[in-house]
Amino acid sequence: MSPELDSFTISEKEGLYKAVFSRRDIRSHFVDKKIPDEALVKILNAAHHAPSVGYSQPWDFILVKNKDTKLKVKNSFVQEREKSISLLDNDLEKQDKYVKLKLEGILESDINICVTYDPERFGPFVLGRTSIPETGEYSVCCAIQNLWLAARAEGIGVGWVSILAIDDLRNILGIPKHVKPIAYLCLGYVNKFEDKPDLERVGWLKRTILSKVIHYEDWNSTELNSWNNTNNIIKKLDDNSV
Amino acid sequence: MSPELDSFTISEKEGLYKAVFSRRDIRSHFVDKKIPDEALVKILNAAHHAPSVGYSQPWDFILVKNKDTKLKVKNSFVQEREKSISLLDNDLEKQDKYVKLKLEGILESDINICVTYDPERFGPFVLGRTSIPETGEYSVCCAIQNLWLAARAEGIGVGWVSILAIDDLRNILGIPKHVKPIAYLCLGYVNKFEDKPDLERVGWLKRTILSKVIHYEDWNSTELNSWNNTNNIIKKLDDNSV
Repeated sequence: MSPELDSFTISEKEGLYKAVFSRRDIRSHFVDKKIPDEALVKILNAAHHAPSVGYSQPWDFILVKNKDTKLKVKNSFVQEREKSISLLDNDLEKQDKYVKLKLEGILESDINICVTYDPERFGPFVLGRTSIPETGEYSVCCAIQNLWLAARAEGIGVGWVSILAIDDLRNILGIPKHVKPIAYLCLGYVNKFEDKPDLERVGWLKRTILSKVIHYEDWNSTELNSWNNTNNIIKKLDDNSV
Repeated sequence: MSPELDSFTISEKEGLYKAVFSRRDIRSHFVDKKIPDEALVKILNAAHHAPSVGYSQPWDFILVKNKDTKLKVKNSFVQEREKSISLLDNDLEKQDKYVKLKLEGILESDINICVTYDPERFGPFVLGRTSIPETGEYSVCCAIQNLWLAARAEGIGVGWVSILAIDDLRNILGIPKHVKPIAYLCLGYVNKFEDKPDLERVGWLKRTILSKVIHYEDWNSTELNSWNNTNNIIKKLDDNSV
């Protein structure tokens, strides 16, 4: 790669940050418009270029547009949502908020994608996975984030439905026992990307200020002389974001 | 957000894909040059804007530049690497390849970042995490991929060191028992971003063709009439990438 190719123009940089900051978890803005195959393949290829522990590339993508299949997944969602609601029997205010939320767009989105993890790929010895086995699953998540950002750049919304039973997904999609479903994603064009995440807009939770999640040198230090300048820049950013 | 802001210019799109395709897991190209605080904060802020289950934002970032701390982490790596090598006692050819690989740049990189997962944040009821508890950790991985891509756009290399003992990280960095270290990252400027991943360059493994990881409607269908056009585009891509 030549040095010129190596560095980013201002507008290229802006493109990356624009995808990061304007990406949303889409549940309710899907419109009835097909995703062109070219765009879909670009998005999948971006996912496939994620980092993976020991270059194991342990991901698979099951593309779903069949209505019957979507309906089965939706049923799993409905059941899991019911269980979820019952967990809030002691917090009726939260429960009331929860039941009003739209949490998935399985049927309205053009394409669903189940992303899975295959621990046996290029195994049993996977370089770098020997101390922390979960790093295999972590690789799949990096692929999902690549997919999400690429979709955003293509103007396509993605919603991650996590209120599902893993066993249901296995049964519905014929996924082998040793392969683990990691995410069920709904992809489609949208009529808008909201300025803020839905859960912030409806008052469920606020975005934490950045300084709350930054530690210096060890967990217990949230301020430190040697990091004063970094800390000041973060606090300025936080002041401007409130 | 206005419709104009919503869509990406060609060059903005290219910026996103450039970050995705030219991002590398860096172990050996770090140079002795400080990361400016402004760039570091931009990268951390990109991470902080990742998706998270129930908007739980369960990540923390411990920034490390102290040499003694880095040395302790390096020692953990050395020990875990030894264990790893012994797992290959029955495959001497692979073992020989393995011992020659440079697998981390802990000391040479300017800043190390330990990224952790706090399951208690905004809990105990986290919306969307009730059926699949791992989605909390998955959120942290999405943040890591945001960080990685933003760093790439800033010309900064990132290496994920996974050959470490979780308990060592907890002890060295004073991380509470309920918080789980997810990744230990090494950040620094580099003298080059290689065209291909290191493990591909040294012949450890090849990139899988995309069509190998795509399934249509269910796990067992790798071809399907209703997906023929998609499949053809993927195969053409694969033909061009070999």
